[in-house]
Amino acid sequence: MNKYPARIYLNDQIVTYQNAKISVFDRGFLFGDGVYEVMVQKNGKIFRQQDHLHRFDSSLEKVGITFDTHSISERVSRLLEASQLNHEDCLIYMQVTRGIAPRKHAFPKDPKPSFMMYASPISMPEINLTPVVAVTMPDFRWSRCDIKMTSLLGNVMASDYASKQGAYEALLVREGKVTEASHCNVFFVKNEIVYTHPANEHILAGITRKIVLELCEQLALEVIEEAVSQKDIMHMDEAFLTGSSTQIASIKQVDQYLYYENDSAGPITKKLQQAFARLRASQKPATK
Amino acid sequence: MNKYPARIYLNDQIVTYQNAKISVFDRGFLFGDGVYEVMVQKNGKIFRQQDHLHRFDSSLEKVGITFDTHSISERVSRLLEASQLNHEDCLIYMQVTRGIAPRKHAFPKDPKPSFMMYASPISMPEINLTPVVAVTMPDFRWSRCDIKMTSLLGNVMASDYASKQGAYEALLVREGKVTEASHCNVFFVKNEIVYTHPANEHILAGITRKIVLELCEQLALEVIEEAVSQKDIMHMDEAFLTGSSTQIASIKQVDQYLYYENDSAGPITKKLQQAFARLRASQKPATK
Repeated sequence: MNKYPARIYLNDQIVTYQNAKISVFDRGFLFGDGVYEVMVQKNGKIFRQQDHLHRFDSSLEKVGITFDTHSISERVSRLLEASQLNHEDCLIYMQVTRGIAPRKHAFPKDPKPSFMMYASPISMPEINLTPVVAVTMPDFRWSRCDIKMTSLLGNVMASDYASKQGAYEALLVREGKVTEASHCNVFFVKNEIVYTHPANEHILAGITRKIVLELCEQLALEVIEEAVSQKDIMHMDEAFLTGSSTQIASIKQVDQYLYYENDSAGPITKKLQQAFARLRASQKPATK
Repeated sequence: MNKYPARIYLNDQIVTYQNAKISVFDRGFLFGDGVYEVMVQKNGKIFRQQDHLHRFDSSLEKVGITFDTHSISERVSRLLEASQLNHEDCLIYMQVTRGIAPRKHAFPKDPKPSFMMYASPISMPEINLTPVVAVTMPDFRWSRCDIKMTSLLGNVMASDYASKQGAYEALLVREGKVTEASHCNVFFVKNEIVYTHPANEHILAGITRKIVLELCEQLALEVIEEAVSQKDIMHMDEAFLTGSSTQIASIKQVDQYLYYENDSAGPITKKLQQAFARLRASQKPATK
């Protein structure tokens, strides 16, 4: 059962979730006009904080919101302190919207962006050993999926479609090719070669995706950044999802096609999961 | 200069805009997970209220939000009373989101939808005699533009792109064809035949668009519901936008191509503008 977080960082204040309220004229509410990030703290360390903040800068720039992310690292510390999560495994969610203005599509002049952040405890194993089921569906989202934005109705509809079928994720198919999932990136393995969609405007360039590509290089695994066709899913040897909270999750089934009869993962998926766990364990705490 | 409305209908209360605040856990804020409508009151009558509420029902159903719109008509009356706009020309904006829940993509169980509505005075002539300039750009939005939803980042970016070039609207081009504009539908006229994109999943089925099609029938104007190619824009005789607040606006220029040297409108555009004004003047006040 999901719960609300204990404390919310809203603009310059830390408040309870009951007091965390924004104007209905916030463009985040009226237009989905905002961007967000989700980071993970694991074993007292925020994993790849700089990568996340760098991507946050990139999303902000792409949508034309001027917001200085330099203060975030220090704000995160204050939030974790106030949330009594300094040393706990947790997700850190942050969102910036274009700000509050009377409703008009075009951007307001000199708006003051709204900032919202919270941390929620999570139970996260060193390695995600729970294989997942996925279903395919058309990728009906926009053509700027490289932007991590809050206009997410397409993603939530896809996620709900998967959920209603008892699946963990929806694999999205654009022009016959698998792009990504509703909130994860997707990889396939065939003949020991790792395939994933190129980081263009049809997918989000995931931080875990990027780490997996680095790990493949270290492990001397060949990678081809090329989309896999929907019709080839059943000809792949392995498939897995990546994401900040999903980590690396083996896909055991896509639609009717079973990769594994029992809960299991392929050899390359396992190798990457172990390398990922080692990498995270080796990380130094984020410096400010 | 845009101003905030005097009163906001928020769930079951009418409050000032300063007090109109929602939880940051409202899915409208976190995910753009909501739908909306905009109606016009003109000369003391809400124009085509039933058409708008019917479309609102359709949007709600398409995104799977359960919300009874039967009470809206009565709530509108209370809002107009409280806003002292009973007899004034105004826009009525209403939005329903999936409700408040801890952040998770898939729909929460039995959420209580949030309702927000306000009315703002507008100055609206009987006929919109101001021709507009439009620019073209790629239609990078999702493939369910038939849903009038609040995940509007694509639309606001398009609108802002137009605005920054001094244009009123962006004509969106998907696979070489003009679909619609960032917040209007688009029509063209060639050899006295009226062209507009079919009402499929790539455009919003506008109420004013529908009325224009009805007026064409009454005026014995031939209509072809077929998209016009971007490259044919310069070969069209006339072009116009439709929308609840835009009404029918002649397009005098698209990118570098000028339809009219001076502010003007083509004969069919003018005929439709006049028929539209007559139709609205003849409408009875909406019954409850």
